[in-house]
Amino acid sequence: MKVASLSVRKFDAAKMQKLNLFETERFFCDVYCLEPGQGQQVHTHAGSDKVYAVLEGSVVAQVAGEEQVLAAGEAVLAPAGSEHGIVNRGAQRAAVLVFMAPRP
Amino acid sequence: MKVASLSVRKFDAAKMQKLNLFETERFFCDVYCLEPGQGQQVHTHAGSDKVYAVLEGSVVAQVAGEEQVLAAGEAVLAPAGSEHGIVNRGAQRAAVLVFMAPRP
Repeated sequence: MKVASLSVRKFDAAKMQKLNLFETERFFCDVYCLEPGQGQQVHTHAGSDKVYAVLEGSVVAQVAGEEQVLAAGEAVLAPAGSEHGIVNRGAQRAAVLVFMAPRP
Repeated sequence: MKVASLSVRKFDAAKMQKLNLFETERFFCDVYCLEPGQGQQVHTHAGSDKVYAVLEGSVVAQVAGEEQVLAAGEAVLAPAGSEHGIVNRGAQRAAVLVFMAPRP
């Protein structure tokens, strides 16, 4: 069976890192690793929903024009068609579990 | 925006509890809460993939005839069509983040 760790981390000063845990025809599950200041620019997927769940640190989630700080242990839904992104405005590294279905 | 906490818990001596965090036409995301001895019986979804990610405690994951102990911070993929289930064989309560796509 395919087992993965939520503790995987890889940080790069150049940009946010995406570490894939699982991927099928139906979804993907990644861990995003963000140095302070890094983020995923606001974008939209017409037909896919995404969940961001903060594992470590904190991020500002931007969904459909709203912003909210998410601490470790908090998750947000970005429904299909909604503009969404995250940015690490904290002083610590952040790690975020990301689920997206269906896979784009 | 819809924010949820991965820390939600509800335990019941009668059976494993399922707490929904997010649900759309495309997927659901729950937290399963298992007292020692409780579990989700092995079953199969023909067209949906599932991820179990252990948040607290540990569970034995059963996927496609294999068994493996998953500690907190470990996750497993149960691909569509594979028999899968979890059981808490530990002495502590367990909580598991569950992601399924598409929603059955």
